[in-house]
Order: sequence, then structure tokens, then C-alpha cells
Amino acid sequence: MLGARCLLRALRSCSSAPCPRHKPSAKLSVRDALGAQNTSGERVKVQGWIRSVRSQKEVLFLHINDGSSLESLQVVADSSFDSKELAFGSSVEVQGQLVKSPSKRQNVELKAEKIEVVGNCDAKAFPFKYKERHPLEYLRQYPHLRCRTNVLGSILRVRSEATAAIHSFFKPSSKVKVPEENFFNVPAFLTVSGQLHLEVMSGAFTQVFTFGPTFRAENSQSRRHLAEFYMVEAEISFVESLQDLMQVMERLFKTATMLVLSNCPEDIELCHRFIAPGQKDRLEHMLKNNFLIISYTEAVEILKQASQNFTFTPEWGVDLHTEHEKFLVKHCGNIPVFVVNYPLALKPFYMRDNEDGPQHTVAAVDLLVPGVGELFGGSLREERYHFLEQRLARSGLTEAYQWYLDLRRFGSVPHGGFGMGFERYLQCILGIDNIKDVIPFPRFTHSCLL
Amino acid sequence: MLGARCLLRALRSCSSAPCPRHKPSAKLSVRDALGAQNTSGERVKVQGWIRSVRSQKEVLFLHINDGSSLESLQVVADSSFDSKELAFGSSVEVQGQLVKSPSKRQNVELKAEKIEVVGNCDAKAFPFKYKERHPLEYLRQYPHLRCRTNVLGSILRVRSEATAAIHSFFKPSSKVKVPEENFFNVPAFLTVSGQLHLEVMSGAFTQVFTFGPTFRAENSQSRRHLAEFYMVEAEISFVESLQDLMQVMERLFKTATMLVLSNCPEDIELCHRFIAPGQKDRLEHMLKNNFLIISYTEAVEILKQASQNFTFTPEWGVDLHTEHEKFLVKHCGNIPVFVVNYPLALKPFYMRDNEDGPQHTVAAVDLLVPGVGELFGGSLREERYHFLEQRLARSGLTEAYQWYLDLRRFGSVPHGGFGMGFERYLQCILGIDNIKDVIPFPRFTHSCLL
Repeated sequence: MLGARCLLRALRSCSSAPCPRHKPSAKLSVRDALGAQNTSGERVKVQGWIRSVRSQKEVLFLHINDGSSLESLQVVADSSFDSKELAFGSSVEVQGQLVKSPSKRQNVELKAEKIEVVGNCDAKAFPFKYKERHPLEYLRQYPHLRCRTNVLGSILRVRSEATAAIHSFFKPSSKVKVPEENFFNVPAFLTVSGQLHLEVMSGAFTQVFTFGPTFRAENSQSRRHLAEFYMVEAEISFVESLQDLMQVMERLFKTATMLVLSNCPEDIELCHRFIAPGQKDRLEHMLKNNFLIISYTEAVEILKQASQNFTFTPEWGVDLHTEHEKFLVKHCGNIPVFVVNYPLALKPFYMRDNEDGPQHTVAAVDLLVPGVGELFGGSLREERYHFLEQRLARSGLTEAYQWYLDLRRFGSVPHGGFGMGFERYLQCILGIDNIKDVIPFPRFTHSCLL
Repeated sequence: MLGARCLLRALRSCSSAPCPRHKPSAKLSVRDALGAQNTSGERVKVQGWIRSVRSQKEVLFLHINDGSSLESLQVVADSSFDSKELAFGSSVEVQGQLVKSPSKRQNVELKAEKIEVVGNCDAKAFPFKYKERHPLEYLRQYPHLRCRTNVLGSILRVRSEATAAIHSFFKPSSKVKVPEENFFNVPAFLTVSGQLHLEVMSGAFTQVFTFGPTFRAENSQSRRHLAEFYMVEAEISFVESLQDLMQVMERLFKTATMLVLSNCPEDIELCHRFIAPGQKDRLEHMLKNNFLIISYTEAVEILKQASQNFTFTPEWGVDLHTEHEKFLVKHCGNIPVFVVNYPLALKPFYMRDNEDGPQHTVAAVDLLVPGVGELFGGSLREERYHFLEQRLARSGLTEAYQWYLDLRRFGSVPHGGFGMGFERYLQCILGIDNIKDVIPFPRFTHSCLL
């Protein structure tokens, strides 16, 4: 039957177009098939995994997903195609004609002419059940399989888009028309460097960034920490105030988020609807308001005057705890807030001395956001040779950091930079509570499943 | 005098335009200043490091570089600006007017109205001397300063462009019109994963890539090895032959290289002229020819019949050595050559069994290129459960790789992938002999200067 149908089509179209028998079916991703303009029976090939099977008397409906979009492609086949092998989780290759769907639930469907089962799925052993929505905690047990689910698929597509958005913020493609207000118009680097190494580069390139994995041997089981996480770091020469840095941070957050929202709305919506109700509004609230700025000293005053009882008593000279960060963000009406000018004694040697007193501070800045707490950390760096020399000497680090001091001997410039935890950023925009759900293969204390 | 000049200008232009006194000078990168269309006295601010100073009776010439381009910006100043502090390596901020240069050596120059020394350079201690060309070996001793030199600046700009080019090959920006033949039209991921982890992702997304640092504890001091290097890895589902993979590799190499050549011609030219004469022609030769394909078995035959005496005697079943790779590339007329189908016993358990004999091979592929040797390595993966199970059992790895076997139980698909060493790629296009010169902070055995 299939053969006859094909032949019929071939005879029909040979008159006006190249014979389709000699023209192999165009291979399309599910995304491209769903968005196809030509639905007048174009012959295509689609490959992917079966997400659902519905068998009726004369027709068989399959939904095929290949990760290119949240939506699956509906395949309509003659019931003669029905087989036990066409099951949830199996991989298939379907050839047929793309046609307009009579149903309102989709624009396009694939009328199957040939269905090949590429790999069976052992349904009994497969940890995910057909039509069941599994909680994220359950999925976390199967890091090698969970990207096959709708929710992890969406999260990982958003992760991919956010990666691209961050790259495009820092280094617009030379093919893209660069908007005039674009900040990073000079080379950007992907290096393994941490901040001190970025400073080396910023001594020759004025604006540099890096985006890659970072490792922390913290013994933390929190929902905000990983032993291995991704970090975006930027370093900018010739900045003179924290204001300059904060502007870039705010623009990075807002520009990247707007880009992600416009590039994968369905994936974001899935998270916002099923995992974090209310997150859509919370995010909009963050995007439409100017971020706030308070000093560390003001922050401590706010905490001291709070009616809330904290586990850790807020006090000038002591670091802010998660409970404090949460309170401050709420206090600021759930608008992201920059906290600036931290006690010198709390911060590393390279942060710029504000030369104030009696409460001696450095030009450091953290950005606190709703739900997550600290998202960015940054500072102006101490670019003055003698200030840095003294700080190093006090810490007994002079010898080890001679190279770092050197940067201040040979054409030093005022500069500063910041880092943003990429997984926390994803948590923040998606409303995902646990950081282990926004990275493909989470590594944390006492756990390295894969 | 400066004040008076400014005032004069202010009075003059107030009639037709907003008073420049109230309009701060536009901050421009050197690159943008050099490419400025408006050279009728636009008031700008440029920041950077002094690359040269030439003092004449009445005029002072400075060249300012900020890393945004190889070319520096010529600053022309009244000799009254002259000062000891305006020295090679110092950082400065110059304000003035962009004007057409009377000299043929540049289009644009900056007529200084204000010059501020931001940071002095201790010329005696500075390891780079004015107007001297230091060899790469010398520069390597100063990883924290060498990016201030022309040659490292160029190499690192090329590195940055190549990074962007690779990203754009795999994941074209959604703002860029995607050419129809584009391969990777589905999500791409930046993960820390190695190949096995990419295979997990390819079980849901059909085409994935990753680009990031990779670590090898190899005790090698070769000019082709690092303890930490960058790797581009891709994994593609539903491929059925090595041919499919080789096509993507060749296209990645050629597309990325063409993009880099068109985006930073001056930087490439510097390397080709001063570091690797003849490299321009060698690279063109690689780009214009179709890459060749030979089997491992053919390769061994070629080596056996060679008149050359090898340190390691070529023999079927033994790995190819660097000397063999070099010979093969030369034998192929210095066109990159894919070597396919390696002995099963030489390769890891996951490569697909060719089921041939008596010389049993797997579907592995290496790409050898002139000057560097192995640039890509890849294979089809064993997607058949029972084949993989047996290979794992033979290696005693069944338990540890249960998760990897699982991927073959639940909708397995034929798939394959490859990795490309990013630093070797840069060596190959630039003709840089030592891998330590194409990465900002090289880490290798017994050396971690920074």
C-alpha cells in the first residue's frame, strides 16, 4: 500500500517538479517541521523519541520530540503501522508528508508514509512513566535520562539560550548590527581565568569577559551551592566608580533576560506555570524597575531596626547571612538591590580602599535578588601600588603576588569587575528552587552520580 | 592655553549645536576612533597605553593602544605637553579632536587638548623594551605582561574571534539570518561534560556541543601538549556513517577559519608575516582543497612503503606516532587527511564495532593537519546494547557504566561525535609552533607560573 501511494505521488509531480523518487526527503527538526510554511504535502523525514501514542480504530497518533522545542510533532499514521515497538520512549524515524492539521491543537502534522523504530525502550525499566508528571527531586536521581523529560528539556534549552544571550551581550556577533549603546565593543575572551587573571588581560584590552566552569570545595548541601558551577566574569579598565560597574551588571541581567524571554517563551512558560507559579510577575517586576542601591552600613541599620528575629544578629563588621539578604530584598519591595561599600576587614586584599573612617570600607558591591540572594559580586580593584603593597604585606602575601603588584608598576589603570553565578541566574529567572535542577550534571559534596 | 582653546571652541559652536562644554567628550575605543567617519573635529576621549613616543621641536607624537586593534591611534600634541611621564607603557587618557591625518600612514589622528597620565610605567623594570621585537620564548616568561605586546595581542584577538566563530557555527545567533545549509539548528549546550556526558544529552537533543577547558595529567613537555587546554566537542544523533561526521568536521574547520580571516585580517597577517612565513599559502591550500580520507590500514601500508626511517616502525595494530602523522600529511600534499577505521584493540570501549575481519576495526576517525598532526578525534559510538555490554564486560567496567548502558536500553539511536583541540586549531591557522603561545595562561607539567 505504501509503495503504491508513493508511486502515485511521483507520477503526479514529475510533470512540474523534479521526480520526488530521486529527491530524498528533507530531514527536518521537529521545531522546523512545526514552523514549516509549506504544508501542502512536502515530503520530509523527522527523527526523534516518542512522547505519546494514541491508537484509534483506523488511525494511530504519535507525538515525536527531538529536543529542538517543547512542543512535539503529531504524526498521523494508518493503524496498520501500529506495533508494540511504537512505545513511549522509543526512538523513531518517520517519513511522510507535512500537512495542515485539521485540529486546532497544532498547525502542522506529519502524515506518515514510513515509520522505522530505531531503538526500543524497555518500558518496564524506564524510570519515567507515560503521562505522569514526576517531581524534580525524583528526576534528579536519573541525571543520565532526565533530559528526556519536558521540564528538564525546557530548563536546558533556556540554559542554552541564556549562554548565547550572555555571549551576545559581551561580544555582539560581527554580523549583527551593533546597537550604539553597546558597551563591550572590544575583544572578549573565554579563558579559564579567575578574576586576578582577568585583571592581567584588562591591563591590555580594557574590557574582557570569561564564561566557564568554576570549582569550589565548599562542604555545602544548600539548594544554592554546587562544587562545580558556571560563572560569568567581566573586568573593565578605566572605570572609576562602582556606579559604572553596577550599570553594566544591571544591563547584563536585563538584556540577557529579555533575549531569553523572547527566544524561548514556551520553555519559560512551562517553568513559570508548573514549577514556580507567580514567578512571571516577580520577574516582570524585577525587569521594569530600576535596581536599588544601599550601602552595607545602611543595610545593617535596616536589619537592626527589623522586627524580625534573626538567627545571626546583624552587626557592623559581620558578613550578611542568607536570612539577612532575604529580608533586605523583601524590604526593598522585591526589587534587586545592590549593597555597596563593605567593611575592609571582611573583603580580600585586592578590593579598593575607600579611605573612609572610622568604619573603614572597600568599594565592593553585591547584587541581591529575590529568591536567590547574592547573584553578582564585584568590586573596584586596588590599582594604587602602595595601597596594594601594604595590604599584601599585612597578609604575608607579598612574595606570592609579586606578579600582581607588577600590574600596578607598569601603566596601572583604575579598573573593576564582577562575577555572576550562572546557575543562580537561571534559578532567578525560572524560579527553580534547587540549583541542581538547572545544570545538566550537578556535582556537589558526597555526590557525583555521573 | 588649553583653557582658552576650549573656550574658543565653545563659543564658536554654541550657535548651531549644543554647547560642547556641557556635552562630555564621547569615549571611543582606539578601534572605533581609527574607523571614525566623522573626522571634522569631533571631540572624543581615548584611553589606553602608550606604545611609542616621538618628540619633535614643536610637536609630540604618541601612539595609543587599548587592545581593541593591532593598529594604534596617533595622538598629535603641542610640545608643551611633553613630560617624562609620557613614556612607553604608561596608561593615559587623551581628550581632543578627531581629525583627518595629513600623513598617508593613517587616516585619522587625535589632536590632543588634554592628556592625563593615569599610571606611570617603571621603564627600567619593565621587561619589554621600546621598539624591540622580543621572541615568543622571551615573552613566555612574563605571562602577566605579555598580552601588552603586539604579537600576543594579535594572537589573543584571533583566539577571541575563533571562539566566537565556533559558537556561531554551532549555534547561529537568532538575530542573524541563518544560511539554509546550516547544520546545527537545534539547542547547543555549554557544559563541563566530556564525550560520555554529551552522549547523555544527545539522547534527547540530537545535536549538542560543548566548548570549555579540559584537563590532562600527561607528563608531556611537548610543544603540542598542555595540562589544561580548551576543547570543542560535538555529538550528533541519527548519524549512520563516519562520512556524516567528517563532513561536519571539515565544515567546522573551514567555516570558522574563513570567519576569523575576514574578522581580523591584520592580526592574522602579523602572525603570518613575522612568525610563520609561508603559513598564509599553507592555510589557503588547506581551505581550497577537499580534505582527504584514508583508512588506518592504508596509512600503515603507506608508512611501510616509505623510504624514510622512522624511530617507531609502523605496524598494523600499533598507534600512529607524531613522525608517522607528519609523514602522512606530507604524503597527502599537505592537505588535511582523515584517517578512519582504527584497530579495535587500540580504541576505547565505546567506539562502534565495524564487525570486519580478520583485522578487526572500529569506526574511529582522526583528522591530521600540516604542522600540528592530530587536530580532531572522533568516532561513531556503539549504540547496540549487546555489543556494548560485551565490550564493557571484557574491560570489567559493566558496573561503573551501568548508566551508560542504560542509554542503549531506552530508545537508543545511532550517533557519533568528535572533539577538536582549540589551541591546536589556533596553532594550525596561525602557524604558531608552541602551544604555550596561543593560550593566555599556559599550565603544563612543572609549570604554573600564574
